[in-house]
Amino acid sequence: MVPDTVRRELCAIVGPEYVHDRPAELIAYSYDGTFQQQRPDVVVSPRTTAEVAQILALAHAHGIPVVPRGAASGLAGGVIPLAGGIVLNLARMNRILEISPEDGVAVVEPGVVTARLQAAAEARGLFYPPDPASLNQSSLGGNVATNAGGPRCLKYGATRDYVRGLTVVLADGRVLRPGGRVLKQSTGYQLAQLFVGSEGTLGVVTEIILKLIPLPRERATARLAFPSLDAAAETVTTVLTAGLLPTAIELLDRTTIDLVVGYLPGGLPEGSEALLIVECDGNDATAVQAEVARVGELARGCGALEVQVATTPPERAALWEARRAISPALGRLRPNKLGEDIVVPRGQIPAMVRRITAISEEVGLPIPVFGHAGDGNLHPNILFDRRVPGELERVERAATLIFEAAIALGGTLSGEHGVGSLKREFMAARLSSEELWAMQAIKHALDPKGILNPGKLFPTRPGDRTGWLAALPTLDGVVPCSAAS
Amino acid sequence: MVPDTVRRELCAIVGPEYVHDRPAELIAYSYDGTFQQQRPDVVVSPRTTAEVAQILALAHAHGIPVVPRGAASGLAGGVIPLAGGIVLNLARMNRILEISPEDGVAVVEPGVVTARLQAAAEARGLFYPPDPASLNQSSLGGNVATNAGGPRCLKYGATRDYVRGLTVVLADGRVLRPGGRVLKQSTGYQLAQLFVGSEGTLGVVTEIILKLIPLPRERATARLAFPSLDAAAETVTTVLTAGLLPTAIELLDRTTIDLVVGYLPGGLPEGSEALLIVECDGNDATAVQAEVARVGELARGCGALEVQVATTPPERAALWEARRAISPALGRLRPNKLGEDIVVPRGQIPAMVRRITAISEEVGLPIPVFGHAGDGNLHPNILFDRRVPGELERVERAATLIFEAAIALGGTLSGEHGVGSLKREFMAARLSSEELWAMQAIKHALDPKGILNPGKLFPTRPGDRTGWLAALPTLDGVVPCSAAS
Repeated sequence: MVPDTVRRELCAIVGPEYVHDRPAELIAYSYDGTFQQQRPDVVVSPRTTAEVAQILALAHAHGIPVVPRGAASGLAGGVIPLAGGIVLNLARMNRILEISPEDGVAVVEPGVVTARLQAAAEARGLFYPPDPASLNQSSLGGNVATNAGGPRCLKYGATRDYVRGLTVVLADGRVLRPGGRVLKQSTGYQLAQLFVGSEGTLGVVTEIILKLIPLPRERATARLAFPSLDAAAETVTTVLTAGLLPTAIELLDRTTIDLVVGYLPGGLPEGSEALLIVECDGNDATAVQAEVARVGELARGCGALEVQVATTPPERAALWEARRAISPALGRLRPNKLGEDIVVPRGQIPAMVRRITAISEEVGLPIPVFGHAGDGNLHPNILFDRRVPGELERVERAATLIFEAAIALGGTLSGEHGVGSLKREFMAARLSSEELWAMQAIKHALDPKGILNPGKLFPTRPGDRTGWLAALPTLDGVVPCSAAS
Repeated sequence: MVPDTVRRELCAIVGPEYVHDRPAELIAYSYDGTFQQQRPDVVVSPRTTAEVAQILALAHAHGIPVVPRGAASGLAGGVIPLAGGIVLNLARMNRILEISPEDGVAVVEPGVVTARLQAAAEARGLFYPPDPASLNQSSLGGNVATNAGGPRCLKYGATRDYVRGLTVVLADGRVLRPGGRVLKQSTGYQLAQLFVGSEGTLGVVTEIILKLIPLPRERATARLAFPSLDAAAETVTTVLTAGLLPTAIELLDRTTIDLVVGYLPGGLPEGSEALLIVECDGNDATAVQAEVARVGELARGCGALEVQVATTPPERAALWEARRAISPALGRLRPNKLGEDIVVPRGQIPAMVRRITAISEEVGLPIPVFGHAGDGNLHPNILFDRRVPGELERVERAATLIFEAAIALGGTLSGEHGVGSLKREFMAARLSSEELWAMQAIKHALDPKGILNPGKLFPTRPGDRTGWLAALPTLDGVVPCSAAS
């Protein structure tokens, strides 16, 4: 797939020490945060935009697939080199080039880990809000590729809302620099925004200009237990129409509560069917505490069984512990999981969670649901054991039913993880043929040979989707790991 | 340009009472908020997406230009039918279809006036923040077309940040519905975002789903007078790195202050060279007042000559009066104005304002500067008298120099007005040839015949731009009105 002449040219571009093609190296670049695994033909680790441009021009000339890869913490199979070819490892491009309080921006390379930028911004009194759960591993290039979110999206928006400028290398090696250091603009098509969430299929992002905002000083958190999902959902609407805008409103359903109840200080009241964790922030401690207290009052008015308010950092940490305990707890129940990322109109959360409970019973697999209730973004996690014959088929059935239910409720496939290979077969169910046509027209205009991250985003099975999950590649001879979430 | 057979078909689609082609009617649809005027061949006023789709399919088949038009309050010539053809008047599509507190969205037609949606949202405890100065005239379709902003952008973002779903009719009559009622998503390319700011060149927006957020209850405002632009700019950085995020930070330069000093209660201290109007909002009156007081302290630390704080609505209105008085005051000085909308990196505001002052002296025309300092978005208004021979050439020279200076400082042509016809000749100076190529590739993919709003966004004079302003059309026999701002 990658001829020796091309390998030699790659060595000339980045230096032979940054071109890898031994089997152990290829395996190391064959996976992401899902169970999918597929070896590339060669891994190349460039250091500069100019090197990326040369690599892409070379790949373009030879029609070789190129898959950009950041920290590989993605949950949609976005960096799996399905067609082999070149994995473009961007981990070496990991400099924070600038933090400018005057201009209110940071300039970073794509390999910078999200938490590192946040710490650097906070040291200057500034704030980069997007907080994917993977923020200690994920890199900003991947955050841009998937439009990564997190709990704080409710108040602060997702990665898309912070991208102001990009350097992007197109499929043929041309370099684009859409946007810039300006905080707002209306000067032609928002090309930078087009690349956000495009999952490496339109270009390779090699530099990112991000908006930074003032850092709020105070936080307070409440844990609210409800006798029903409807009471929790009513609380979300009541809070958000009472003039209160919490930083985050996180939901845990009954199945998730059962998994993490041991982490909850003091346990939970009998009959707790849903839990909300609500956090507020601001600069005035009294006002922030009053806001959380008001959330608690409103929740009681909606029937909350219990309201626990935390204001000190240790109390807050204890309340968040249950939320953070979910992922490890899932792993104890079953060795494998398929973590989904659907979004529904916010008012449809109770209907969606009830539907997932019914799907769980129908397929006979546990599916705890948690997520970002204020945004309608839910993470149903289908738990299973790959070694049990027939379980993968039941996972496929459950995931299919969940996607169909979300779409039927006016929702969509992914809120913050992206589509990758894992949800591609459902794009034709979610999007109209006109919308798919428009996306493919843009893809074709910018990458006419289709070398960038092939096999992602677009459906490959227009008719019968049976077997879509089993058809995804796993690496021979390697026991699939449990997927992270 | 529009054959009689097509006129008859248009009458069949919308009814003959909604097809206009008498001279007086054509003149009524020949202008916008600039001095440009050009008659269309026919004006059609559809009521539904289906009618728009039929009109576009018909125009596409015959290769007739179509210019979508909302309230025509735009300041970039975006709705001037430069090539004649059909003006698609969307004013009849003016229903607020839904305000959903549960889902946190509004669903509107493009002809809804911005302020009307804001009032309807506030009646439900919700908030639609974008606040262009024209909000009592401008319609939401135009806000989407230009990615309209306003003072509150600093804290709350522009129109782009609120668009969640669109119904768009493409050039050939196909209907796209990108996005939806979901508050976040990462499910393929963000097509809805691509249409935001595309100024009617990629499709006609016929329905808009907008995010609504909780309505803050309390506001407080401060007026800060400075002995120098640098002291005002230092205050902006100091405030925004002290954890404070005001709703708005508006700047008035020396020339603008002179124009509106009569509106300022109590006048201004001797030697005031720059004025900031800072507003904060939130839900706790004490906290909001403390925040504004803290802004005042920080301003004094940066050398402010005077800090006036207002908390009651009448006091706040008095402070905002100077800001609102700018536009009428400009008209008293000279009969015509060219209002620009450049953006520079926030830290470059003093350099940009100094450059504009020098340009004003060089061309011999007054150019007051005001705008949204927190975002780096400035409105230099070149004041002139069209009747004076040679003045238009000096306006052209001043505008050219202003664009070139903004670009040299890392800025851009427009923050919230759009490019339209007025700034198109500078797109090749602002954007690289690769970026222009990418925009044109997208344009060609979605509108291969180029019937949608021709003559906008893209440069027509790749080489010498001399005469670009005089070349823009004005209507024979009609005295050009003063441009609004």
